[in-house]
Amino acid sequence: MDINSIEPIARLINEFSKLPSVGKKSAERYAYFIIKSSDEYVKNFAEALLDVKSKVKFCSICGNYTEKSPCKICRERSSKVICVVKEPKDAMAIEKTGNFKGQYHILHGTINPLAGVGPNDIRLKELLKRVSENQTEEVIVATNPDVEGEATAMYVAKLLKPLGVTVSRIAQGISMGSELEYADEVTLSKAISDRKQM
Amino acid sequence: MDINSIEPIARLINEFSKLPSVGKKSAERYAYFIIKSSDEYVKNFAEALLDVKSKVKFCSICGNYTEKSPCKICRERSSKVICVVKEPKDAMAIEKTGNFKGQYHILHGTINPLAGVGPNDIRLKELLKRVSENQTEEVIVATNPDVEGEATAMYVAKLLKPLGVTVSRIAQGISMGSELEYADEVTLSKAISDRKQM
Repeated sequence: MDINSIEPIARLINEFSKLPSVGKKSAERYAYFIIKSSDEYVKNFAEALLDVKSKVKFCSICGNYTEKSPCKICRERSSKVICVVKEPKDAMAIEKTGNFKGQYHILHGTINPLAGVGPNDIRLKELLKRVSENQTEEVIVATNPDVEGEATAMYVAKLLKPLGVTVSRIAQGISMGSELEYADEVTLSKAISDRKQM
Repeated sequence: MDINSIEPIARLINEFSKLPSVGKKSAERYAYFIIKSSDEYVKNFAEALLDVKSKVKFCSICGNYTEKSPCKICRERSSKVICVVKEPKDAMAIEKTGNFKGQYHILHGTINPLAGVGPNDIRLKELLKRVSENQTEEVIVATNPDVEGEATAMYVAKLLKPLGVTVSRIAQGISMGSELEYADEVTLSKAISDRKQM
């Protein structure tokens, strides 16, 4: 009864252990939970996995995840203020504070020369086009407060200021080196309201 | 862009958060990981989930998970020594020590009057039948060292001793109140070799 002799269980443990921060023990625990779960739950789980891949696409305007493009926020909110973030989950984090009523722009990365990610590899051209074609008054750069995030913020400021738009940076109320995704909502809310002009 | 407006993502987060000890944040992290993963990985993951439910069944002899019944251990090993455990994962933990060469018997539960689980609700009849029909010399009771596990061990001893079989209990080298599943292999190995007759 070596663990590998029950191939379907070994395979499921292997798939679970590929999830971020999931080790062997946790993966085993999840797999045993699945074996004991109802057929219905497992069927729904498998469908949810496949659905996310087949139904979720990118908004043609902001680059966020959406079921139909343009996304609800791009359709319903004014483009006067645009908040620039690295990842969709960062937009989600800001959205949860309930304090920001503008649109988002997802870069899908930050400038990172060491990893070979330059300004052309993230959605900066799209941001420039979007700001120049709309009556955008302010762009809030809400990238992570780390080296790449700061470098990207500087680049965005340099890129957009010639257009006469105000470029601001979220206040450094969030601790340096941490991840935006994990900041608590009060801190994040404060960081947005305390943004300072660049 | 409320989280619930992207229904497939919200659904996947919901399914992930049903896994044991997975909170909202972790579930979100897993879901975003899935969105970014390759189609192939997600397809394999979904298949592995469904396969585990459709292909894994119980061994007709020991009650362990197997792809074909009787399982490999029941087919290939002697039934002279049978190790009784609560769950398949406990048998897996003992198997990993590499020190036990007998067969297993999975009870699929322990006696727990408060939860309404009596001797007839776990696989004790099957154990009695198995021991009386085979040349079993020893039954090692390796249930968890908690109240239910101890009560079950006492019950097994009372049930089997009239058949003239030796009933032993794994040594209490493992700390009381903990879970067998999480004991380290050295401790577990020691507990098996230090078993004492009941």
